[in-house]
Amino acid sequence: MNLPTIDDILAAHRRIKPFVHQTPVLTSEQLNKLFSCELFFKCENFQKVGAFKFRGAVNAVLSLSDIERKRGVATHSSGNHAAALALAASMNGVKPYIVMPETAPAVKKNAVTGYGADITYCKPTLQDREETTRRIIEKTGAVMVHPYDNFNVICGQGTSALELLDKRDDLEIVIAPVGGGGLLSGTSTCVKGINGKIKVIGAEPLNANDAWKSFTSGILTPSVNPSTVADGLLTSLSELTFSVIRKNVDLIFTATEESIIECMLLVWERMKIIIEPSSATVLAIIKENPDFFRKKKVGLILSGGNVDFRKLPF
Amino acid sequence: MNLPTIDDILAAHRRIKPFVHQTPVLTSEQLNKLFSCELFFKCENFQKVGAFKFRGAVNAVLSLSDIERKRGVATHSSGNHAAALALAASMNGVKPYIVMPETAPAVKKNAVTGYGADITYCKPTLQDREETTRRIIEKTGAVMVHPYDNFNVICGQGTSALELLDKRDDLEIVIAPVGGGGLLSGTSTCVKGINGKIKVIGAEPLNANDAWKSFTSGILTPSVNPSTVADGLLTSLSELTFSVIRKNVDLIFTATEESIIECMLLVWERMKIIIEPSSATVLAIIKENPDFFRKKKVGLILSGGNVDFRKLPF
Repeated sequence: MNLPTIDDILAAHRRIKPFVHQTPVLTSEQLNKLFSCELFFKCENFQKVGAFKFRGAVNAVLSLSDIERKRGVATHSSGNHAAALALAASMNGVKPYIVMPETAPAVKKNAVTGYGADITYCKPTLQDREETTRRIIEKTGAVMVHPYDNFNVICGQGTSALELLDKRDDLEIVIAPVGGGGLLSGTSTCVKGINGKIKVIGAEPLNANDAWKSFTSGILTPSVNPSTVADGLLTSLSELTFSVIRKNVDLIFTATEESIIECMLLVWERMKIIIEPSSATVLAIIKENPDFFRKKKVGLILSGGNVDFRKLPF
Repeated sequence: MNLPTIDDILAAHRRIKPFVHQTPVLTSEQLNKLFSCELFFKCENFQKVGAFKFRGAVNAVLSLSDIERKRGVATHSSGNHAAALALAASMNGVKPYIVMPETAPAVKKNAVTGYGADITYCKPTLQDREETTRRIIEKTGAVMVHPYDNFNVICGQGTSALELLDKRDDLEIVIAPVGGGGLLSGTSTCVKGINGKIKVIGAEPLNANDAWKSFTSGILTPSVNPSTVADGLLTSLSELTFSVIRKNVDLIFTATEESIIECMLLVWERMKIIIEPSSATVLAIIKENPDFFRKKKVGLILSGGNVDFRKLPF
């Protein structure tokens, strides 16, 4: 299997740099005191479409051949990846085909159409999503851009850690959340490629702990009907992301729903920034493992800030 | 009456600079597009204690004589000013005496005690608050630091606009919210002292429009039982702030409750930062007066980000 290297991530960064926000790295004296360590938050909640997903999507679009560009790109997603691919494609004159379940919230449908994509609706089952996407690809020749099981997407997601280490070269630990594993794959490839001494840790909801199970057992073990407030982390690792994570990640910690919600509220209250529950997972594992992180300099990737304010978990 | 000048604000800035956060100036392509103007948000929601109030409080504390420092400072407040004065005093080895109504929310009481202040509780009437504060001052000799009817507080509040103009010297309009008028007094003194051509506009809830009434009629006209979601703007102008505002402010616009809530949600959704309803008033007046602001470069002071997440207005 062809795994990404630091050179692939450096190349992705050169490619996407004119299109992405160089998001800030924020700190909070109050949270440092509370958790007895030095925290550096890389704020992908301020990224375009409100999530790191835009980095991978735009790298995938910019990596298309001329023939592929004319055919368009396709994906099935009800979340941030759909909006990210729609915007990344539209910005570059490439046609995006997005398959979404007809039950998706209006706000998500509007975001995707607002970025210039045609939505094809399907029934809310994985089978119908995949079938509908396959039909579109057959008809149009569009290139499938999977949300995480995709080499170029992983390289794009790794550029966030690159910018973080560029600002702070003294970090001892970097944490990224893990769902399908695209962000953690890119992050770990980047960090280990720059400095092998920095520990890379995945943060996963206990209620969707397939990555932890797979990592611990050495056998790819997808989740069955996971349920967590961290709705960006419901998906399971693929063969590709599992391979990268086994090679580059030091540890995976899990966090309870209570910790995730508590840490989301802490960031809102103390830092005055909006993060989604998936992002709070990186702080929640610090809360649950204080001895491991005590007095360490820790970089945390805040993955996104797309929240339905009418359905808050607190 | 001795009104502050730009020199007083420059002196305040030199005094408080080591103690305050130089808050960022943020922009949003989406909001620029939506409102057809260029917006520059000065983020006092990221200030210590989550509000611009800290600037005024710390300037007041640093302006005490040695004898006054030993006696301490006192105020009555249930909001951001109490927390700001408590922290400003504690940081500088000065004893803060804070009078709060016994009915104040636990979260506000905890914030103030967390910053090292003794709270004296009173009945939730203005009369009992003033009477209780008077007794403490008689007993201790503490210096009263009023939340806005105070020369040094006004000068401190003006330093936010100073940092804003330092970063953006091409602004055509600067907007600040107006409640008691401390922030608008400091802001307008600063802006007009630097460049008389820049328009300074106050943003006030229609439901608490004493400043608009006073400014328009030329007669100080306090609000009677105002009721607005912008709970930081319930107070009325004092003689001092009214005098400064008459001299330096070009216009006061009011905004409805609906506009304030809508604009608060817009900033949360599009910018991923937490602002309190009072802060949203500055954007709400742009929404209600699109022709006035079209294609202009507008600086907006986001006054604070202290929100009770269990009582959201949307």
